Amino acid sequence: MSRNDTICAVSTASGVGAIAVIRLSGMESHKIALHIFRKKNGNPLDINDIKANKAYFGEIFDPIPDDKPMVDEVLITFFKAPHSYTGEDSVEISCHGSVFVQQKIMELLCVRGCRLAEPGEFSKRAFIYDKMDLAQAEAVADLIASQNEAEHRIAVNQLKGGFSNELRALRAQLVDLTSLLELELDFSEEDVEFADRTKLYDLLGKAMTHIGKLSDSFRLGNAIKNGIPVAIVGETNTGKSTLLNAILGEDRAIVSDIAGTTRDTIEETFNIEGTLYRFIDTAGIRETSETIEKIGIERTFKKIAEADIVIGMVDGSKSMQAIVKAWKNIVSHVNILTQKLLLVINKSDLMDAATMFSLNDDYIYLMKSTYEKNIERNGGYMTDEYQYSITGRDLHDMINLMQFNYMSAKKAEDVEDLKKSISYATRTHKIDSNTVLVTNIRHFEALTHALESLRQVKNGMDNKLSADLLAQDLRQALYHIGSITGEVTNNEVLGNIFGRFCIGK
Amino acid sequence: MSRNDTICAVSTASGVGAIAVIRLSGMESHKIALHIFRKKNGNPLDINDIKANKAYFGEIFDPIPDDKPMVDEVLITFFKAPHSYTGEDSVEISCHGSVFVQQKIMELLCVRGCRLAEPGEFSKRAFIYDKMDLAQAEAVADLIASQNEAEHRIAVNQLKGGFSNELRALRAQLVDLTSLLELELDFSEEDVEFADRTKLYDLLGKAMTHIGKLSDSFRLGNAIKNGIPVAIVGETNTGKSTLLNAILGEDRAIVSDIAGTTRDTIEETFNIEGTLYRFIDTAGIRETSETIEKIGIERTFKKIAEADIVIGMVDGSKSMQAIVKAWKNIVSHVNILTQKLLLVINKSDLMDAATMFSLNDDYIYLMKSTYEKNIERNGGYMTDEYQYSITGRDLHDMINLMQFNYMSAKKAEDVEDLKKSISYATRTHKIDSNTVLVTNIRHFEALTHALESLRQVKNGMDNKLSADLLAQDLRQALYHIGSITGEVTNNEVLGNIFGRFCIGK
Repeated sequence: MSRNDTICAVSTASGVGAIAVIRLSGMESHKIALHIFRKKNGNPLDINDIKANKAYFGEIFDPIPDDKPMVDEVLITFFKAPHSYTGEDSVEISCHGSVFVQQKIMELLCVRGCRLAEPGEFSKRAFIYDKMDLAQAEAVADLIASQNEAEHRIAVNQLKGGFSNELRALRAQLVDLTSLLELELDFSEEDVEFADRTKLYDLLGKAMTHIGKLSDSFRLGNAIKNGIPVAIVGETNTGKSTLLNAILGEDRAIVSDIAGTTRDTIEETFNIEGTLYRFIDTAGIRETSETIEKIGIERTFKKIAEADIVIGMVDGSKSMQAIVKAWKNIVSHVNILTQKLLLVINKSDLMDAATMFSLNDDYIYLMKSTYEKNIERNGGYMTDEYQYSITGRDLHDMINLMQFNYMSAKKAEDVEDLKKSISYATRTHKIDSNTVLVTNIRHFEALTHALESLRQVKNGMDNKLSADLLAQDLRQALYHIGSITGEVTNNEVLGNIFGRFCIGK
Repeated sequence: MSRNDTICAVSTASGVGAIAVIRLSGMESHKIALHIFRKKNGNPLDINDIKANKAYFGEIFDPIPDDKPMVDEVLITFFKAPHSYTGEDSVEISCHGSVFVQQKIMELLCVRGCRLAEPGEFSKRAFIYDKMDLAQAEAVADLIASQNEAEHRIAVNQLKGGFSNELRALRAQLVDLTSLLELELDFSEEDVEFADRTKLYDLLGKAMTHIGKLSDSFRLGNAIKNGIPVAIVGETNTGKSTLLNAILGEDRAIVSDIAGTTRDTIEETFNIEGTLYRFIDTAGIRETSETIEKIGIERTFKKIAEADIVIGMVDGSKSMQAIVKAWKNIVSHVNILTQKLLLVINKSDLMDAATMFSLNDDYIYLMKSTYEKNIERNGGYMTDEYQYSITGRDLHDMINLMQFNYMSAKKAEDVEDLKKSISYATRTHKIDSNTVLVTNIRHFEALTHALESLRQVKNGMDNKLSADLLAQDLRQALYHIGSITGEVTNNEVLGNIFGRFCIGK
């Protein structure tokens, strides 16, 4: 990588606009830009007179022909190292957004010694000149690609350095661990073993929990990036496809009165209050001998397992016994400790008030017992305190939620209410300005590797391995953490990361 | 039109880019932008501390939620009236090019009191605040739309005020005329007629010549904007479609050995050395009874008349007599005083050197006599001086040109040579940095009306009409000239002009 050359690129979106911005960065950037810039009075701007960060109005001209024709009227701003995006001397030319003008100015710059920037090269230089770490540079790309509130929030937090700070804390913990071990190494010939193994275990445990928390956030982070998966499930002919179409506001899924119309799963993303959801319409659950339908039902169970939210639909026009049986069937496939279940009674316009009331009690009883069973199954126990300890997942919440869930999938109001329920159920997915979520697979993998190395350290300690062997695994863990922020890196990794950026950033 | 409200728009091309620029203009623009901007240390920027034209680095944030989340890291530049594009206080926010970020910032600005700018509204304000005249504002739109060197050059010259200066000179001439007439009006009761009618006639003549020159340039300006029309003509099966395909570098026209393959005209634009040409492949000329082909041949003659350049193709594999006959036929349809003719002998690989040499002499003789006939037909006469007086149209030029015109349309080199000939033939169409060309139909119409009014003045003078009647027509001419630069205008006209701009300009 040459640090001495000066790069240029059109940094605004391609195509015609009112204005476009051309960026230069590198040692020669001021000199090159001044070669083709003159003030409105025709005089050149002296390189010694330039004030940093000041926008000058003037003309870009072609210095080669005798008449030195003006190419465009522009605003030009000079930035001086290290106070620029890249940390180098740099220039921004704000010109008219004609594609011809953009090309012409780029051509003039290249004739004078600029090189076309590679994708992400400005950000790469910012990383090299310590203007931001690697995780922050990656956040720039995520920010540019962000399409909704949640993605944007995650990227902004990462850009601000929230994730980097977490990693710094983690690193400090690991360095503490290492220094303890190194103390032991210094005295290794004396065969000293420091009494404070407990402290080592304690530090190790904390670091592992910390990494575990970060790498667990990848599931949520990824869900937010690709859409939180919402499976719509229930027996055949309860109106699942009708609901999907109603949510999307378009005829996406084929709807008919024939049970088993949907056989393969249909997925569509949809934005509710700034969060992206991935709705999955599944095959209705029933006993069937039809091969394709059977495969579809198997997939339904798989989709239930993968979903963050399960919308369990039952047919309100059926008997109370049938409804309760259908409910139980759906609930038995959901882990209500890790997944959110919204039970929806469709065709509620065909129910009478008495049935509704009676069902309410049944529902609360069913949910309560299921909740208890789930907690027991997970080795917990049921206390008032525990109910509230799993944020947003307590019984009261679920009971609150169910108030919204009588609906007719064909009624627009009811669909809006359901959307509100979905949004409410995922309010814990809402990202505030301090939430750190891992959304990048590279980061997730590095964290997984780091965790694996720490497990080796723990095993080693359990098996009383010598401090130098433990230190080796510890260094490995530090390496993986360091690779996220770019403290350790190599050209190939950098090439992969910045190659995915757009040109001009 | 409200001058007090503050407008905002995304000024860069739509879509995702590395960066995007959002513009604000209006009295409140600084205040509104500062509401949602904070420095990197979290402190607000005080409106009294702002330095004009200085780029500040900081954050756009959402001031409504409690955690006041950052929306983006931006560069923000403040411009103070009248030293801005619009002439008002204005602001440019350079943010990351995510569509979500752009929308979010626009939303925050609108909540704080900005209004979305209408197309061209920034330029409209620049016109209202006397930052540029109407012709210059229109040049901004032309500049943004420019796709090649020539269009760009015309727009730049107009933006620089070249056209406006011409109009100012014209206006001065008309004002001189008016003052002479008004002098007469002052003495009208004394029935004075100033002896210097000659001077009046002289001034009038100059003004009319001036306007005539400008309005004549519309043909060229328009040709440059839409492509200089080049008609490819000749007998059937001489390889005209093959040539078109070779120039375009693609299989645009259907080619076969069957005479009369091309029946309707085919038009395609192509850029040669920065100038746009519109190539027109025509039906081959021959006697035919086939109805569609007949219509096609009629169109060929029409296209010849409309073309700036005629490429006359003859088949080199034919006999000398046939070639000369075909030449004469083509030449008879061309006005070589106003059109440029490039005679091309195709399939020249099938000719022997002797025929070539002999044809050379015939060609020169043919061209010379045609030239003389044309000049006589136009009331001129043939002298050496006259030959050179029509710039770039003299006989020597044509003889020079013909050196290039032996070709095989299937040979890439020959096609490149022909392209050079075309470029050379239109070198007078090349625009230098001072050329003023009318390309806007609104300007052309205003000039035509002004010329018509001056003709009325001249008729009036010939018929010895009174000075007050002459002055009326003269004022009419001044009105039309003034409408071009916007000295006289109305809201409807402004709406039409700026409505065609892109948003953000």
